Amino acid sequence: MQTSMPNWLMQRAFLTPDRTAVQYDGGKKTFSELHDAVLKRARQLAGLGISKGDIVALLMKNSIDMIEIIHALHYIGAIVLLQNTRLTSSELSWQLEDSQAKYLLVDDELAERISDFSHIRIVKTSELLSLPEQECRLQQEYHLDDTATIMYTSGTTGKPKGVLQTYGNHWWSAVGSALNLGLRETDCWLAAVPFFHISGLSILMRSVIYGISVYVMHGFDAKKANDILIQGKATIMSVVSAMLQQMLSELGERTYPDTFRCMLLGGGPAPNPLLEACRDKRIPVYQTYGMTETASQIVTLAPEYSFTKLGSAGKPLFPAQIRIENNGQIARPNEPGEIVVKGPNVTKGYLNRPDATEQALKDGWFYTGDIGYMDEEGFLYVLDRRSDLIISGGENIYPAEIEAVLLSHEAVEEAGVTGMADEKWGQIPCAFVKLKEGCEVTAEELSGFCKERLAKYKVPKQIYFVEELPRNAAKKLLRRKLAELIPKSGGTK
Amino acid sequence: MQTSMPNWLMQRAFLTPDRTAVQYDGGKKTFSELHDAVLKRARQLAGLGISKGDIVALLMKNSIDMIEIIHALHYIGAIVLLQNTRLTSSELSWQLEDSQAKYLLVDDELAERISDFSHIRIVKTSELLSLPEQECRLQQEYHLDDTATIMYTSGTTGKPKGVLQTYGNHWWSAVGSALNLGLRETDCWLAAVPFFHISGLSILMRSVIYGISVYVMHGFDAKKANDILIQGKATIMSVVSAMLQQMLSELGERTYPDTFRCMLLGGGPAPNPLLEACRDKRIPVYQTYGMTETASQIVTLAPEYSFTKLGSAGKPLFPAQIRIENNGQIARPNEPGEIVVKGPNVTKGYLNRPDATEQALKDGWFYTGDIGYMDEEGFLYVLDRRSDLIISGGENIYPAEIEAVLLSHEAVEEAGVTGMADEKWGQIPCAFVKLKEGCEVTAEELSGFCKERLAKYKVPKQIYFVEELPRNAAKKLLRRKLAELIPKSGGTK
Repeated sequence: MQTSMPNWLMQRAFLTPDRTAVQYDGGKKTFSELHDAVLKRARQLAGLGISKGDIVALLMKNSIDMIEIIHALHYIGAIVLLQNTRLTSSELSWQLEDSQAKYLLVDDELAERISDFSHIRIVKTSELLSLPEQECRLQQEYHLDDTATIMYTSGTTGKPKGVLQTYGNHWWSAVGSALNLGLRETDCWLAAVPFFHISGLSILMRSVIYGISVYVMHGFDAKKANDILIQGKATIMSVVSAMLQQMLSELGERTYPDTFRCMLLGGGPAPNPLLEACRDKRIPVYQTYGMTETASQIVTLAPEYSFTKLGSAGKPLFPAQIRIENNGQIARPNEPGEIVVKGPNVTKGYLNRPDATEQALKDGWFYTGDIGYMDEEGFLYVLDRRSDLIISGGENIYPAEIEAVLLSHEAVEEAGVTGMADEKWGQIPCAFVKLKEGCEVTAEELSGFCKERLAKYKVPKQIYFVEELPRNAAKKLLRRKLAELIPKSGGTK
Repeated sequence: MQTSMPNWLMQRAFLTPDRTAVQYDGGKKTFSELHDAVLKRARQLAGLGISKGDIVALLMKNSIDMIEIIHALHYIGAIVLLQNTRLTSSELSWQLEDSQAKYLLVDDELAERISDFSHIRIVKTSELLSLPEQECRLQQEYHLDDTATIMYTSGTTGKPKGVLQTYGNHWWSAVGSALNLGLRETDCWLAAVPFFHISGLSILMRSVIYGISVYVMHGFDAKKANDILIQGKATIMSVVSAMLQQMLSELGERTYPDTFRCMLLGGGPAPNPLLEACRDKRIPVYQTYGMTETASQIVTLAPEYSFTKLGSAGKPLFPAQIRIENNGQIARPNEPGEIVVKGPNVTKGYLNRPDATEQALKDGWFYTGDIGYMDEEGFLYVLDRRSDLIISGGENIYPAEIEAVLLSHEAVEEAGVTGMADEKWGQIPCAFVKLKEGCEVTAEELSGFCKERLAKYKVPKQIYFVEELPRNAAKKLLRRKLAELIPKSGGTK
């Protein structure tokens, strides 16, 4: 089967040049105008020496510049490594080292974070925009097997791995979503989630594939988002529970026009009161399950099932399949096991990690590490995210990563981290620490130690000192039992 | 890249079991009900001995039975050869012989046409419906490279070739169309064109891929079609000019509701008065260009360009590309040449015709044999269908095929066939014949001779006797000059 197709934005600029491609504070661009701008950026990037196959890291916040640069790198055939702007300098540095990225393009406001990276060419956005142009060879076609983007995600070991997302992954993800949500020429997707997450990047990909516009927010702002939706300027929005909750609070007695047709909710099932509030306001909420490795949602629950299938993530997108495995067998309905997924939107593997790839991908099936079950009708229920994953305000937090930092402190003997329910963020990370004999350290000191090494959202909000951590017979840490250690009188921090 | 996906109807029955899949005179079925019916048919067909890879011919008119049988054959993994019900016994027989089909499933009303086929197992629809069931292995997944269907089409030589249409061809055609026309859960596609043509079959494929319903007409009827559309029972319809013309005449002062969103027009550009009438009635007409080898439309003209780009077939679907070649070079804008197309909806070739396949497909580009040009903005204008193809009421007629029949008559020395404009059918075939010296035959006799050997729509409506046929220096027949031979006083028949 043919595995190439026309360069998406170029094809859009050819087929529907005058449709709006992107709206942002201060302006908008048609597909034709976006293509022209991207062409210029591509020539500027080529002038830097960037060429096909190079890995180029991006440390940027949502903006028209970021959109242009992502497309421009794809025009050249470079692989875009999208970095989370909330990471610390050492976390960023680790990714750059591991990926062997040759360039780092960084927003001026974030540049101080990366001042000590000597092994890589760093270019600030402001510099880039004024670079001279150079003729370059453009990718007229995208090869669906080629890697388009890389995003780092942590696993059970806490060691982040670069997830390879191909053009084909993005393409099929977009097509699967359209077959589920439908598609209208007049659609506009509000992008308030970051482009360095797959939830945000997938909006950009859909925009050029569908020929619809994306409304870019520099950062999430509940009032601004509500204003945009109330004015009918967007018809679909991607959110996590915490965002939706804030928007509902801010919304008050108002609601959105009937043209608003989809609130695509990621990052775990929504709490019942939130769903009820949305139902009362006729806001259609589509709950989803997905991950970096599936290039966005792979399972979706249509609004009509919000209450009859409360807590479910729904059914797979049309081209995808899911099954539950328990001890190597396909589980019966309602029997929990590992969630295993298959589909053309699933990653081809991890950058330079053949072992991890082989472990996760078998016969085209991807082992998510998440635990769940399917009911008799095939609706998926997710019980536990992989490796006790904590999802806080839509950000993935891997306990093992925080534990590793805590364990690197000279006073710490053992550490365990788990997520605690939080009204605003869904979950927050909490740590349980056993100190070395004779050592002393305060929770404040440990928290400060973490802050230097971890993105703020990963820093434990509570640190409890305990005598012993719960472990099974094989001494494996039982993170889910950590919460039982919390003293009745409250936290020590 | 992954090249398999879940069996389409099975996946639909799983994902959206309660949506209406098909409506027909006397009833309707949900995807779940359709799946159950197809499962039964598959077991009955398996009972006949049909298994994966077998070529099974269908000689049927549009009906729920035909839909179930097509899906059932795909459940088993058989390849469906769709035969035009208007062909003569000898034309049908030739296809069966050439394809080595093992079975022929035929509507009772058409069975007399095939009474003398001894080399093939023939089963009437009525028999099939009461056959016992047998357990069989079902295709849980469709492999996109596998052949799903075969349709015969004639070429320059007049010798029909079996076009291989893969699951991938149908899939990408459906996706390309959705990205162009949009997609709504509430869509319903009125199928008044025959399923043995790609224009009709592609509706069935879209129905299960999109999860929308198809409204089946046994045969085209302008009044019935108008009633369905006026009542808002369908939102999209596939037509050829002759059908649309009849519907407009029948429609009178009425028009369709706003929910009707697309009249997909194949078989050549529409005449201006027809487009104007549609515009006045706010009927959105999408003109298209496509062929059996592209699994339906590959180029489409949006209604907003109907008049500014009068006569154009439009621009390619998103995953597809077109170019014009002239003497092996890519033509400049407005320079005519051969239309060459590329895309994942393009056939992988002709059944058992490696030479013809190699000639038509080069580096993924398909040489259509049609002549056309692209304007500066990339809009395609089709000047001549391949090999002087005549399109009459949506049916393709290849002059060479009719000429071969005429030449087989003992009195005929030379024959040339061309299409003449006709108000009702768009075009009709007309023949120009030079008799052997000393021989005599009337136009009526020749017409009767053709009727025994050719489908009725292929029989020349006018036969002119001439002294000499127009030929170039290489003695190649110049079919386009035939019309100049018509005596001023009118035809001889």
